Amino acid sequence: MSQEPIGLQLRSTVKKEGILELTVARVPTPEPKSDEVVVRVDAAPINPSDLGLMFAGADMSAAKVAGTAEQPVVTASIPPVVLRSLAGRVDQSLPVGNEGAGVVVRAGSSDEARALVGKTVAILGGAMYAQFRTIKWSQCLVLPPGTTAAEGASCFVNPLTALGMVETMRAEAHSGLVHTAAASNLGQMLLKICLKDGIPLVNIVRRQEHGDLLEGLGAKHVVTSGAPAFMDELTEALVATGATLAFDAIGGGKLASQILSCMEAAASRTAKEYSRYGSTKHKQVYIYGGLDRGPTELTRNFGMAWGIGGWLLTTFLQKTGAGAVQKLRERVAAEIKTTFASHYDKEVSLAAALRPEEIAIYGKQATGQKYLINPNSGIGR
Amino acid sequence: MSQEPIGLQLRSTVKKEGILELTVARVPTPEPKSDEVVVRVDAAPINPSDLGLMFAGADMSAAKVAGTAEQPVVTASIPPVVLRSLAGRVDQSLPVGNEGAGVVVRAGSSDEARALVGKTVAILGGAMYAQFRTIKWSQCLVLPPGTTAAEGASCFVNPLTALGMVETMRAEAHSGLVHTAAASNLGQMLLKICLKDGIPLVNIVRRQEHGDLLEGLGAKHVVTSGAPAFMDELTEALVATGATLAFDAIGGGKLASQILSCMEAAASRTAKEYSRYGSTKHKQVYIYGGLDRGPTELTRNFGMAWGIGGWLLTTFLQKTGAGAVQKLRERVAAEIKTTFASHYDKEVSLAAALRPEEIAIYGKQATGQKYLINPNSGIGR
Repeated sequence: MSQEPIGLQLRSTVKKEGILELTVARVPTPEPKSDEVVVRVDAAPINPSDLGLMFAGADMSAAKVAGTAEQPVVTASIPPVVLRSLAGRVDQSLPVGNEGAGVVVRAGSSDEARALVGKTVAILGGAMYAQFRTIKWSQCLVLPPGTTAAEGASCFVNPLTALGMVETMRAEAHSGLVHTAAASNLGQMLLKICLKDGIPLVNIVRRQEHGDLLEGLGAKHVVTSGAPAFMDELTEALVATGATLAFDAIGGGKLASQILSCMEAAASRTAKEYSRYGSTKHKQVYIYGGLDRGPTELTRNFGMAWGIGGWLLTTFLQKTGAGAVQKLRERVAAEIKTTFASHYDKEVSLAAALRPEEIAIYGKQATGQKYLINPNSGIGR
Repeated sequence: MSQEPIGLQLRSTVKKEGILELTVARVPTPEPKSDEVVVRVDAAPINPSDLGLMFAGADMSAAKVAGTAEQPVVTASIPPVVLRSLAGRVDQSLPVGNEGAGVVVRAGSSDEARALVGKTVAILGGAMYAQFRTIKWSQCLVLPPGTTAAEGASCFVNPLTALGMVETMRAEAHSGLVHTAAASNLGQMLLKICLKDGIPLVNIVRRQEHGDLLEGLGAKHVVTSGAPAFMDELTEALVATGATLAFDAIGGGKLASQILSCMEAAASRTAKEYSRYGSTKHKQVYIYGGLDRGPTELTRNFGMAWGIGGWLLTTFLQKTGAGAVQKLRERVAAEIKTTFASHYDKEVSLAAALRPEEIAIYGKQATGQKYLINPNSGIGR
C-alpha cells in the first residue's frame, strides 16, 4: 500500500474578468481521518450534471490551450449575462466530478475504514476528476466481486435519478411515466427498471435511430419529437399507458408544454362531461436537465390541473431519507452489470479531457458520445 | 309567496358551425324538492371565471344582435383553433353565472328549507344569471341581517379564492405571498385578509394608480410590472417579506418567470455557499387566471427548486374538506361588509348584459370595470 501525498486534480475557476480557467493541478491528498479512506479513482463519468460546474457557461468553441501536456491550462470567455449568475463562485478554484469508482489504497484507523482497503468501491461527492479522493468509509458503495471501476463508475447519478423518477411517480400517485431524451444512458436504465418493475413508460427520443435502440431493449412506446405525427402518436401512447408524470431532460422549447397538451387530450378521451377547466387528473412535468438552455414555452391549453417544476436528485435523496436511499443503493450495486450498466464511447485521461477536440464532442451532451475519465491512466505508478 | 313557474335565464350555446349564441331564454323554474329552495336572484357578479363559459373564446368585437329588447340574441364567430377545444359543449345550451344572492321565495317540505323562506342568501353553483334558481338549502349561505343581495353577491368565488391562497400558503409551508393583478376586487380582499392576519404580501399591479389604491388600503409592498425598476423593486420586496409563493392572474408572458427569478435573487442574498443548482428553498407560482391568454415563457434562471402550476378553487375546496370550508364560509359571511366587501362599477339587467357596448367594457376584465347583473331588474313583479 503506497503513500500518495500528491495527485493530479481537475479544477475549474471563474475569474472576475469573465474568464473560465480549467487546469490539471497537483494537489496534496488529505490524510484519512479515522473514519475515512483514500480511493485511487480509476474511472469517473462525464455526466451532463458535471458540465455546468466545469464549463460555467463559457464559450468553449473558442477555448485556448496553454500549459504542458500533463498539466494543460484551458481558458475560455464567459458571456457577461452568464457571469452575473456566477457571483457565488468567482475566483474560487473548484474541483469537479460528481461520482467515480476505484480502489481503496489507504484507510484511517477505524475498523470499518480498514476493512475497505483493496476493495473496489463507487463514490459520490464531488472532486472525482482526481487521482485520489479522501472520503468517509460510509460514503463508499462496495462493488460486487468481479466488478471493475469502469463498470461501477456511474453507480449514483444516473441509477439513483432513474430510481428517483420511479419513487416520485409512486409518492405522487401517478401510474406511468414519460421520459424525454430517452435513449441516454439514464433513459436506458429507466427503461430497464420499468420493464422489470412493470411500469408503463413512454419514451420520447429526438432521432428515429434512438427509438430503434430502445425498441431493441424492449421498449413498447417510443415516439420521435419533431416528427409530423408526434402529437398524435404521443397522445395514443398516453392513452395506452395512462402516464400523467413526465421527466424532461430538455427543459427549453415547447416539449414540456406539448407533453401536457397530449396528456390532457388523452384524459379528455375518457371525460364524462364537459368542463372548461379541463380534466381533473393532475398532470406533471419535472424538468431535471437543461439540454436546451432556452426558455420553456407553455401554451396552457391543458386545463388547470397541471404543474411544471425543477427536479434535483439531491433534493429527492434528502426527502426520501437515509434508510430508503440505502435500499436503492443496494439495488444499484446488485444490478450494476444489468439494469444499471453504463456504456462509454471513449475513455480519456485528465489531460486529454481538456483537449478542445474532445470537449467539442462530449460538451454536446449528445446521445452516443459518453465519456469516461480515468484520472490514473498515463500516470506512472 | 308567489308561484314563479317561468323565469328569464341567460344561456350560451356553441354551434358546431363555429357560432356562439347568447340568449335570454324563458325557462321553467324547477319545483323545489323537500331539501331545496327557490331563490329569486337579485344580484350576480360577472367574474373573469364566468366569461370563459359565457363567450367561449368567440370574437365579441364583431358580435351581432337580434331578437327583442327583453330577449336579445347575440351571435359571434369562434376561431377554428378555439372551436376544437370546445368539442365537449357543442350544441348544448348552457346556463351561466357561478354565484349570486337573493331572497328565498319558495321552499320544499323539509324544516330546514322552510326556515329559509324570506331570508337573503348567497349561493354558488352555476346558472345564476337567471331570475330564479332552485338549489339545496344546504348550499345557501344566510347573510347577516341588514345585508343586501348586492352586498352578498360575491360571497364565494373571490372570498374563497383569497382565503384559499392563504390556506395554500400555510399548507405548503410558505410564509408570505405575492399576488398579481393585485388591485382587482379579489386582490383587495387578499390584501385585507393579509393585513388582518399579519401575512406579508407583495402586490404586483399593472398601473401606478392601482398601486396608489392599494397603498390607500394599507399595502406595504406594491410594485408596478413593466416599470423600469420592476425587477429590482420586486426583489427588494421579496427580501423584505420572504415570500416564496405567488398567485398569478395573468398567466401569459414573462411575469411568472420574472417572479421566480426575483425570488431566487432574494434567496441568494442570504445563501451561505455557492450552489450551481440555486437556492434550496422551494419557489412556487400558481396560475389561477388567464388575463393574458398567450404562452407563458420561463427563462429558468432560478435554480432547480421551483414549480409552476394551475390553481383552481374547486380543486382547493375538494382537497380542504367540508368542515374547513364551512369555517371559511362563515368567516366570509361575518366579514361581508368589511374584508370581503365588493365594489361594482355598474349594475345591469340580463338583457343589458348582452348589449355589445357593455360586453366591450366588462369583457376587457380590466380593474375598475366590474359589473353586477340584477336578473330581476326591469322585470315587472
